[in-house]
Amino acid sequence: MSSTPPAAGQQARASKISPDHPGVDKLFALLAYGEVAAFYRLTEEARMAPNLTGRINMAAMAAAEMGHYELLRNALERRGVDVVSAMSEYASTLEDYHSLTTPSTWLEALVKTYVGDALAADFYLEIADVLPAEVADVVRGVLAETGHSQFVIAEVREAVAASDMHRSRLALWSRRLLGEAITQAQYVLADHDELVDLVVSGTDGLGQLTQFFDRLQRTHAERMAQLGLA
Amino acid sequence: MSSTPPAAGQQARASKISPDHPGVDKLFALLAYGEVAAFYRLTEEARMAPNLTGRINMAAMAAAEMGHYELLRNALERRGVDVVSAMSEYASTLEDYHSLTTPSTWLEALVKTYVGDALAADFYLEIADVLPAEVADVVRGVLAETGHSQFVIAEVREAVAASDMHRSRLALWSRRLLGEAITQAQYVLADHDELVDLVVSGTDGLGQLTQFFDRLQRTHAERMAQLGLA
Repeated sequence: MSSTPPAAGQQARASKISPDHPGVDKLFALLAYGEVAAFYRLTEEARMAPNLTGRINMAAMAAAEMGHYELLRNALERRGVDVVSAMSEYASTLEDYHSLTTPSTWLEALVKTYVGDALAADFYLEIADVLPAEVADVVRGVLAETGHSQFVIAEVREAVAASDMHRSRLALWSRRLLGEAITQAQYVLADHDELVDLVVSGTDGLGQLTQFFDRLQRTHAERMAQLGLA
Repeated sequence: MSSTPPAAGQQARASKISPDHPGVDKLFALLAYGEVAAFYRLTEEARMAPNLTGRINMAAMAAAEMGHYELLRNALERRGVDVVSAMSEYASTLEDYHSLTTPSTWLEALVKTYVGDALAADFYLEIADVLPAEVADVVRGVLAETGHSQFVIAEVREAVAASDMHRSRLALWSRRLLGEAITQAQYVLADHDELVDLVVSGTDGLGQLTQFFDRLQRTHAERMAQLGLA
């Protein structure tokens, strides 16, 4: 392992966080619950699909969430954590996010899927950069598995090209999704000191956290452009 | 490939069916729709789970169905079949099976999952034996992926050991599941000549088909014993 040189950039700087930091277990449990919650929500929202192709795409995407869950569960088990009990702590936050962002049309469901997948990828990427190598590997393993939501792009672009009403409604909708995600992320931090400490130790303080939320908004804007919603 | 000797028994006898038999496409499309239908039904029925562990187990099982679907879809694409359109032909039969076997309790949902997984495995195993090697490999690939329903056994055994009422209700329920599965299988055959021809060419005639349904009932009885329902 040590014979491979560190990759440029992200790996060059050693993490300031110990792999034993109690926030790591909390973070993995939060992400694990997020994957299971996404599985059930995607599947429920897929009922709005107008055809079998849409239902198959959403099912494949939901199945991928369970693949992510299994990576996180394995990591938690290796760390000696009682997985289900650790996950349960995050149930209300994640269920709240989903119940506050229940789509009312198939297009809204598609945009939610895409935005959720992209936000999760941004989030995984950010945290991987500050975590100790062995922990970051788990997160990067999950990240390498995302990108199953590409099927959304063509369908949404086509719909919004044909209708200004769809475009403006979906643009508002996607802003609301980002807003709720950030709100719930802040609630989670407020309720879990170990997570705040993890973020602060990894990022030279809370100032970086603000920058993180700023970056999320910028990449979100890029995604909206991809969907034709800019 | 030809350097490996054929496995004893099943591979020793060459299949009488040509890989180009039109029933093969039909069979794969039927199985593919069955996997997607099972994904959605398992996930819906999992809402009755009394706890997060139950919901996670059912989600993992549903995700495995999508893995099977992908093997079948890849095989159909290699055979030049328009997958979604071929699958659609079997929608009503499979949706009928599920709507006629909607569980009303979590234990019924667990038994349905187990019985469905086991019947699918029996079915895949039987057909693999009579199909040409290249086609049988697809079916065996799916078969190797089953067995995700083992989590059901302990939970059902515990419940029926504690309650004769549960035992007799679940025994009736499992008999009904088998009955509906056989009924729907017969409907599918009645409506699709290519499938009947596939079965007849592979099995020395319809007499073997009756024996197949008899075998299904015997292995079903063994499964019921495993669940404590005999």
